[in-house]
Amino acid sequence: MKNQPIGVFDSGVGGLTVLRTLIERLPYESYIYLGDTARLPYGTKTGETVTRYALQASAALVDRGIKALVIACNTASAYALPALRQRYPGMPVIGVIEAGAEEACQVSRSGRIAVMSTDSTARSGAYPAAILKVRPRAQIVSIACSLLVALAEEGWTEGSIVGQVLEKYLSPAFARDPPDTVVLGCTHFPVLKREIETVLGPDIALVDSGSTAAAFVEQTLRKAGELANGKTQTDIRFLATDGSDRFARVAQAFLGSSIRALAIETIDLSPFSRVD
Amino acid sequence: MKNQPIGVFDSGVGGLTVLRTLIERLPYESYIYLGDTARLPYGTKTGETVTRYALQASAALVDRGIKALVIACNTASAYALPALRQRYPGMPVIGVIEAGAEEACQVSRSGRIAVMSTDSTARSGAYPAAILKVRPRAQIVSIACSLLVALAEEGWTEGSIVGQVLEKYLSPAFARDPPDTVVLGCTHFPVLKREIETVLGPDIALVDSGSTAAAFVEQTLRKAGELANGKTQTDIRFLATDGSDRFARVAQAFLGSSIRALAIETIDLSPFSRVD
Repeated sequence: MKNQPIGVFDSGVGGLTVLRTLIERLPYESYIYLGDTARLPYGTKTGETVTRYALQASAALVDRGIKALVIACNTASAYALPALRQRYPGMPVIGVIEAGAEEACQVSRSGRIAVMSTDSTARSGAYPAAILKVRPRAQIVSIACSLLVALAEEGWTEGSIVGQVLEKYLSPAFARDPPDTVVLGCTHFPVLKREIETVLGPDIALVDSGSTAAAFVEQTLRKAGELANGKTQTDIRFLATDGSDRFARVAQAFLGSSIRALAIETIDLSPFSRVD
Repeated sequence: MKNQPIGVFDSGVGGLTVLRTLIERLPYESYIYLGDTARLPYGTKTGETVTRYALQASAALVDRGIKALVIACNTASAYALPALRQRYPGMPVIGVIEAGAEEACQVSRSGRIAVMSTDSTARSGAYPAAILKVRPRAQIVSIACSLLVALAEEGWTEGSIVGQVLEKYLSPAFARDPPDTVVLGCTHFPVLKREIETVLGPDIALVDSGSTAAAFVEQTLRKAGELANGKTQTDIRFLATDGSDRFARVAQAFLGSSIRALAIETIDLSPFSRVD
């Protein structure tokens, strides 16, 4: 088991920001990353559809032999975690929301926390639920920022357009009783981090759910005695449900290093379409 | 046959701009509109995947008894039209690209034509091919404007952000030897028409492929003697592959009138997943 890979699943390339932190933190692990690029984005779709897609994608990863499953997508974490844990009771299934919520509760002094996310994650209420579980008196503002996903994928990560888009999304939440902590509740948002910090100013703490989740993965595997031996080199496989060119092109900004299109295997999820 | 509905297919809600023109032009026809909202957008996906999706969605429409099929999505028109015409040899299958290309060739004086589209449509080369067929000496600039889809869906159709995004996409094409004609090669773009006109100024002709395609549909049905009798009231059915709430919410901007979420039927395309 120990030397089996960790499965990392995302709707597309955003989860590569999580994979990046995982690799930094757990360099001796192997990884299989699956991006459901044929059906992305998840952030504008219903919980029912997102859950169905997450079950199918996870089945494809489990089929390849993994020791843990990381849901590196906030929208999928918001909706599909209970169904996935029920489906795979013997396997650690780690989402990004619980980790981000806990970190935000620790970091915030005032208890006023803003969560930036996709439309679907915002409407799921998953972040408020997870935050209130840890800190029952917290005040949470959910900010749906769907356009940021498109900006990140277009590679427009800095400049005046990004700044204005961020102003438009964020300023209503800061008009009065401003939060002191902002959660990046979508794995696309870390690539916009510098601009978000500029717009928010130095007094607001930023919590990146994705990198916080990597610490959770480490803890979980350590407790279970399932960390890799530490003598093998990291092996990373990339799977995508749609062609690999765009994946490879967009990936660099998210992973921080380049992937050759040839190294990405295109897979078909239809054999798993009956898993739900 | 005459009183069977016309099937209109799009990846999501963008095709409602085409449906709107169809209803204005052919008010006695009935329509079934199918938006593949569970897998939208198509504009960032490969031709192979887009073709597979288009075949499945069209099978669902043909299954419901239609007399003609309108592909109200530029990306699907760019890739799937040959496969669809081969699959349904007895039925008129009308895309939006040929219509838009022909109109652009008629309207342009200089023969310099810019086509705004999604990333996938731009990379397909379908517009240049269709334009050069009509006007072999035309000079075509393809402008991939992926972010406009997200802006249109977010309802940000005017204001300084839209203006700046348009400037960023359009200005390189107008730096020298500027086109005199711009094709709106994505059905999401007509809702941004006013801003596009403002950025381009009064000397540039705008061609809306979608509304041009409606005229093609009329011509085709008239020639075939298949126009509806003209005594029945328009009946419109809406189908979507994902939940109807977002569809209903976003639809108004595109259709120009509201649709109740209840009037939208959610359908499952997986029974058609083997059609390709």
